[in-house]
Amino acid sequence: MTDVIDREAVAAPVDGSAFPGSRRVYVAGSRPDLRVPFREVTQSPTRGASGETSNPPLRLYDTSGPHGDPSLRISAEAGLAPLRAEWIRERGDVVEHAQGARTVLRARPGAAVTQLHYARRGDVTPEMEFIAIREGVPTEQVRDEVARGRAIIPANINHPELEPMIIGARFLVKVNANIGNSAVVSSIDAEVEKMRWATRWGADTIMDLSTGRDIHETREWILRNSPVPVGTVPIYQALEKVGGRAEELSWDVYRATIIEQAEQGVDYFTVHAGVLLRYVPLTAQRVTGIVSRGGSIMAAWCLAHHEENFLYTHFEELCEILRAYDVSFSLGDGLRPGSIADANDEAQLSELRTLGELTQVAWRHDVQVMIEGPGHVPMHKIKENVDLQMELCHEAPFYTLGPLTTDIAPGYDHITSAIGAAMIGWYGTAMLCYVTPKEHLGLPDRQDVKDGVIAYKIAAHAADVAKGHPGAQRWDDTLSQARFEFRWDDQFNLSLDPVTARSMHDETLPAQGAKVAHFCSMCGPKFCSMRITQDIRDYAASHGVDVDAGRQLGLEEKSREFLERGGRITLPA
Amino acid sequence: MTDVIDREAVAAPVDGSAFPGSRRVYVAGSRPDLRVPFREVTQSPTRGASGETSNPPLRLYDTSGPHGDPSLRISAEAGLAPLRAEWIRERGDVVEHAQGARTVLRARPGAAVTQLHYARRGDVTPEMEFIAIREGVPTEQVRDEVARGRAIIPANINHPELEPMIIGARFLVKVNANIGNSAVVSSIDAEVEKMRWATRWGADTIMDLSTGRDIHETREWILRNSPVPVGTVPIYQALEKVGGRAEELSWDVYRATIIEQAEQGVDYFTVHAGVLLRYVPLTAQRVTGIVSRGGSIMAAWCLAHHEENFLYTHFEELCEILRAYDVSFSLGDGLRPGSIADANDEAQLSELRTLGELTQVAWRHDVQVMIEGPGHVPMHKIKENVDLQMELCHEAPFYTLGPLTTDIAPGYDHITSAIGAAMIGWYGTAMLCYVTPKEHLGLPDRQDVKDGVIAYKIAAHAADVAKGHPGAQRWDDTLSQARFEFRWDDQFNLSLDPVTARSMHDETLPAQGAKVAHFCSMCGPKFCSMRITQDIRDYAASHGVDVDAGRQLGLEEKSREFLERGGRITLPA
Repeated sequence: MTDVIDREAVAAPVDGSAFPGSRRVYVAGSRPDLRVPFREVTQSPTRGASGETSNPPLRLYDTSGPHGDPSLRISAEAGLAPLRAEWIRERGDVVEHAQGARTVLRARPGAAVTQLHYARRGDVTPEMEFIAIREGVPTEQVRDEVARGRAIIPANINHPELEPMIIGARFLVKVNANIGNSAVVSSIDAEVEKMRWATRWGADTIMDLSTGRDIHETREWILRNSPVPVGTVPIYQALEKVGGRAEELSWDVYRATIIEQAEQGVDYFTVHAGVLLRYVPLTAQRVTGIVSRGGSIMAAWCLAHHEENFLYTHFEELCEILRAYDVSFSLGDGLRPGSIADANDEAQLSELRTLGELTQVAWRHDVQVMIEGPGHVPMHKIKENVDLQMELCHEAPFYTLGPLTTDIAPGYDHITSAIGAAMIGWYGTAMLCYVTPKEHLGLPDRQDVKDGVIAYKIAAHAADVAKGHPGAQRWDDTLSQARFEFRWDDQFNLSLDPVTARSMHDETLPAQGAKVAHFCSMCGPKFCSMRITQDIRDYAASHGVDVDAGRQLGLEEKSREFLERGGRITLPA
Repeated sequence: MTDVIDREAVAAPVDGSAFPGSRRVYVAGSRPDLRVPFREVTQSPTRGASGETSNPPLRLYDTSGPHGDPSLRISAEAGLAPLRAEWIRERGDVVEHAQGARTVLRARPGAAVTQLHYARRGDVTPEMEFIAIREGVPTEQVRDEVARGRAIIPANINHPELEPMIIGARFLVKVNANIGNSAVVSSIDAEVEKMRWATRWGADTIMDLSTGRDIHETREWILRNSPVPVGTVPIYQALEKVGGRAEELSWDVYRATIIEQAEQGVDYFTVHAGVLLRYVPLTAQRVTGIVSRGGSIMAAWCLAHHEENFLYTHFEELCEILRAYDVSFSLGDGLRPGSIADANDEAQLSELRTLGELTQVAWRHDVQVMIEGPGHVPMHKIKENVDLQMELCHEAPFYTLGPLTTDIAPGYDHITSAIGAAMIGWYGTAMLCYVTPKEHLGLPDRQDVKDGVIAYKIAAHAADVAKGHPGAQRWDDTLSQARFEFRWDDQFNLSLDPVTARSMHDETLPAQGAKVAHFCSMCGPKFCSMRITQDIRDYAASHGVDVDAGRQLGLEEKSREFLERGGRITLPA
């Protein structure tokens, strides 16, 4: 891993406002146009009795894209540079056609342009190499996991601005942030800024869930400025097209909508193709019925027409379209529970079985698939969700909303759900859809988006550590070391949200001197356990106490030896 | 359970500021001076096509004590009424002596006045009956669990103001909030108000961790006003008495300190008697050494004297003192990990084995015991902590600090640790010590205390639900039902923090009309899945679709039948 990470790196200081002490670096891949961004946190040296020891910088996965490179000037109107344009064109399998001012790509007739297709035929694409460097894993692991369907690389050929990332259980757990206006409030500028804001704090993908006017234009702005994959729920726009009357939806309207969105560059579609007519009555006795918007729209359509869900009956055609742009399926759980009372019930699990069938259909068409999951699940029923999903959906990546582990705390559902998200991530879920404090209550503002992303970065990282992802715990250990050595600035700079950490310290001990003090406000100088520990450590070092040997010799014996050696720790008064 | 809960209840409206729609009720026990407080949340009726259906109120466990009863006027100077004074005196096993203006109780020579002693001899004390009503469980379960040492009732005979509560794996998971000044900031008034504030939001016990001047007076104010058990770490005050020089600590100074605190009414003591001399070198190679204040003080003392920890060598005498006041042991984990790198290491587990030995010593003396646990533990190492504690400490209740599941998020450690706390609670931990957002950074203010308690009430309740505690999920289901029926005010009032929930709703839809609207801001009226679900439910009801029968007949068949019956849902435009 180290030799991949340590190839030539190009550095630039990072905008100091959010991440002081960090700089943007790039690690070069096998070709000049393959440069993988990281945020590198610098550290101050350790000052001990015997002088200074330097501490290496820590490189962190960076989702902010060009927006996180202070050397670049980005205009929202012009959008980001098309990083992947050459990679896509040189594969020689697309045709171009003009769509207004833009050129739109599509697979040559009969061709599959999906990363799954390339992986299956043995190709390591530049996207895969980018990801291998980003994750610190071998390129072959990336290719193999994609080929098996256990991971996806959402990367529409019409979204060349995207920096490739991977969603799969054997990689870092990812976080999605939902943005999008609704009929009630919001604006296009606000949505684009929400995307930049969410990715600054670490969102790995975003979903544009707009349902109001200007859906097309909002999405265009987001896509042209987004360095992360963008997902949508196309049924929302289709419903707008038929004036909000679900019974007037049709395959033709839906088909036109997904082609429109695929040509814009949407990277994955939530498709509620598993809401079958016969499952709908199973929800009637639930405490909270159907809570998925897309699920309820399709259920209403099925009941109104007494016909099977047209997304299910046209699924093969859907696959053909998605395959022509490399749009990934996010098979939606339209019947997910909306309360812990409804968790793991027959409606939910019936739909999951159908999503498993559809996964195999999509794979036959070389289309990438992930599976959406709940929702609201008490802790003791979480693992069953992952185990069943793995079994029924053949290890396709799982992508869950939370889950919330209790329903009693509206206003704090980023916390009720971070608990479930961390656990389900540990059990094998590949991506976690964030929940903000405003869930169930209102539309998230800037602070809510940040709070939601941070809670979910915590959950995802806790899962990475528990899964033993290579290198994940290095971040914890580096920060803990800085904490123990009272390198306060390093502790702040290494944290998920440095400015907040520093400002909390300032509230009690604002003086700059306190940032180098060998104690903190919680205990004061006399009670400082870390200072006492340092005395113990110094004692052990100066007296040659060999702890490993002590373990082997047996504790009793070591204790006697320790006592016999004398020496005395005097605490500071 | 219902017949216990539904005995005569006396009601008073609750102060509307924090809990609108709630009233204080009391459930009477077998004697007139045994009245158990609850907070009862009223609900509005469900309005359907066929008229109104009333919804029963929900009774919730209430930790706020007399401070939560708006009919009482409480002066901090006078303190709370001595609820348990008669219960204690009528057992006839105490002697009284004057201590300044107060009368102090002590066991008659040779007598044990602990709840463990009473439980073992088969007595159901008023304290046990109070708890049985409070928890909704049989009194015999309370007595039996206490007798076996699997639960404790921290209730010093000199703290008669206390409303009895229980800490044990077979009861509701409890939350402790730490308060207390330090050498750097804070004041007595602020600490008493923090106690009231923490118990308002649901803290089941508080620990006074003061280390500055006025320790005795601060504690006196807190005890005389606290309806919940108060814990301390007596070594802090002992250290103050010897001018902060750990090596000058002695058994005599410590002994005088615990008698002083026991006579004031402290309900449990954290005692770091398991920090043995031979374990200290085991911490030298840790990333973060010793992070417990008490643990580091005792480690320093051991090294300075080359002697075994005097709390360990005098443990039997300690037991005799605690038994005379019914102070419970909280055997401290002075060697707990301060980073996930150090979790479950030899230092930690060695100390745990010693705490298991000490548990049996305390039990021989009829003294109640709980065991403190970590700290910082990654998710995959949490269960091992509980399993080992149960085994090594003979099922004495476990009381953990968090644990934090990652170290990368200072400023958000109420979240990093709520994840671990929920899990460890589910696995069998009886009480969770809260962590505030300021952990590692500064002293918690009012908002931090509230944020910490709420995060931990979420964790504890999620654990209660996962453990299947009788009645726990009723709270979730009641709120979910209100949510589904768009009873917005009920949803707010039933939540952990009603005012915050309502204010978040107000941010998007402030009009009072929106509080009865059958949609919300997240989706707007056209996309409302809950509204569509109601249509489905109405359809099912009006067409006699029998879901249970459908499950039995097989889904395929039911689907055909459903189709054949006709009917049409028209969505609102």
